[in-house]
Amino acid sequence: MRIEESIKNYGAKIDELLKELIPPYRKNYLSEPIWHHLQTGGKRVRPALCLITCEALGGNPDEAIHFALAVETMHNMFLIHDDIEDGDTVRRDQPTVWVKYGTANAINAGDYLLACAYKTTLASPISLEKKIRLLQVLTSTYEKTVEGQALDINARAAEDFSVDDYMKMVEMKTGYYLACGMVGGGIVSGISEQVVEKIWTLGKTMGPAFQIRDDLIDLTHGKGRGGVIGSDVKEGKASFLYAYTLQVACAEDRKHLRKIMLKPRDETTDSDIQWALDAYKKYNAIQYAQDYAEDLVKQAYKTIDEIPVENKTVFKEIASFMAQRMS
Amino acid sequence: MRIEESIKNYGAKIDELLKELIPPYRKNYLSEPIWHHLQTGGKRVRPALCLITCEALGGNPDEAIHFALAVETMHNMFLIHDDIEDGDTVRRDQPTVWVKYGTANAINAGDYLLACAYKTTLASPISLEKKIRLLQVLTSTYEKTVEGQALDINARAAEDFSVDDYMKMVEMKTGYYLACGMVGGGIVSGISEQVVEKIWTLGKTMGPAFQIRDDLIDLTHGKGRGGVIGSDVKEGKASFLYAYTLQVACAEDRKHLRKIMLKPRDETTDSDIQWALDAYKKYNAIQYAQDYAEDLVKQAYKTIDEIPVENKTVFKEIASFMAQRMS
Repeated sequence: MRIEESIKNYGAKIDELLKELIPPYRKNYLSEPIWHHLQTGGKRVRPALCLITCEALGGNPDEAIHFALAVETMHNMFLIHDDIEDGDTVRRDQPTVWVKYGTANAINAGDYLLACAYKTTLASPISLEKKIRLLQVLTSTYEKTVEGQALDINARAAEDFSVDDYMKMVEMKTGYYLACGMVGGGIVSGISEQVVEKIWTLGKTMGPAFQIRDDLIDLTHGKGRGGVIGSDVKEGKASFLYAYTLQVACAEDRKHLRKIMLKPRDETTDSDIQWALDAYKKYNAIQYAQDYAEDLVKQAYKTIDEIPVENKTVFKEIASFMAQRMS
Repeated sequence: MRIEESIKNYGAKIDELLKELIPPYRKNYLSEPIWHHLQTGGKRVRPALCLITCEALGGNPDEAIHFALAVETMHNMFLIHDDIEDGDTVRRDQPTVWVKYGTANAINAGDYLLACAYKTTLASPISLEKKIRLLQVLTSTYEKTVEGQALDINARAAEDFSVDDYMKMVEMKTGYYLACGMVGGGIVSGISEQVVEKIWTLGKTMGPAFQIRDDLIDLTHGKGRGGVIGSDVKEGKASFLYAYTLQVACAEDRKHLRKIMLKPRDETTDSDIQWALDAYKKYNAIQYAQDYAEDLVKQAYKTIDEIPVENKTVFKEIASFMAQRMS
């Protein structure tokens, strides 16, 4: 498929340029933890989508590549900070940065990646007008993602947590974030603010759709942490399934489910996890989540139809690619 | 004194605008931890110096106020993250953010403050050229401070730590940071890159001078943590005294001093602290530090003489103010 080939090619280029932006093997206590993290993998999908969008809309991808790098470094900044915040010890079968280098170095390494995101955007070979627009995109994406993360961190302790709360959280935490590469690539190619707005709207449906499917994968295949089912329950992460079940369950089940979520992860037993999964089935949360995600994807295609550009192929291809999988 | 009055007045204005930028009492899990921290005090000296410089060089402080706010929010972002990284539990007699709201919320609250710094700078009512220059100043200050913090975090575990290492660390960690408000205020008023370079140079002498005096205060009056003497030794912070003593002491004393520094803070005894303070006296580190700081201040005044602007009064007043105290 054309888009997967483009992602692969652009991804390789991004990998190369990341090494110029953050030279490995520098003895500054930043290069090492950052490259420990970057080398765990990641297919550089987000920056690739930025370059693909730019090219498809008639822009020069060489002018968007600095911003593409910014998208990737900001993405990894969030992963490093999120791993500390969530207490995750393993990412892609490697110890997370905070586990290997300590919390202090991990926070600071994340901070450094954000500096790199701004530095590279400021170095873009484009007009001042476009540069300011890109910096606005980067900043509002960063701000919204942090706001979403604030809701996420505190969701498990919240007395009530509904599907609306979940949607608000993931729209902010993953929606902007998913769209920002496309928005930036588009801006470099010269799109209007109307088009930008539509791409944000697209992100706000595709992001949650992707996240709900990720939540479902945790129940069926596990999230790549050795194929263990139900990690989200163990880690107390507020998934769509949790939000929906909390909303519709009887008082007694709600209470028990919250109790399980609030347990520290090493105190959550296998039977706790099984209880939660059974509750999700009992209340038909899985089917509801599947339908909900499907509906969001439909909305996304509707938004694409409304984007005021002639050639919508690239957005359709990206949506279809993301609906299938994202890494 | 004129400058102290200006700082007070501008400081009050900054306090007011901070409430617009980050409205208190919002239920988003960010407003509360951030205002818990902001309300612990701070005299908003850094943003005030930005506005004072702008005005003195013939600029309109109303055009610099967005950047002044950015300097203040970035400053507080670093304080919140540093408190986690250093394991500090108390700041100005209040529990630190991570102690009161947890590490996850504290990291995220710091991240949010940085988003605010960029957001407000982007909203400055100035030309695109000046805006880009301010964003470059913000970004390079942020980058250098993080690089300096990386050296600081890892200094205590370093096999060797010399006065040169110390100077490199504090030039990066406090030098850029101290100058960036002045640089930004100057840019808004229309100064050239040559003037900017001289102000950075000024920061690289004033910053370390200030830091060395702060290190000395820890030995004489304590750092405002209930007047306890020797907190830096207890907390394993690599001070100028530590760097110099490590450089000149005999092998046996070096070894013992490092051992004390490497101890977790709750295992560091009063007699450990006394031993370190005695070692600093034995090797004449205190006198050396005082002389070194004085020399830096002299260099700072020399740099001021070289700044290619007609009216250097503002820089002399700022330098004299900072040489006396900084909060």
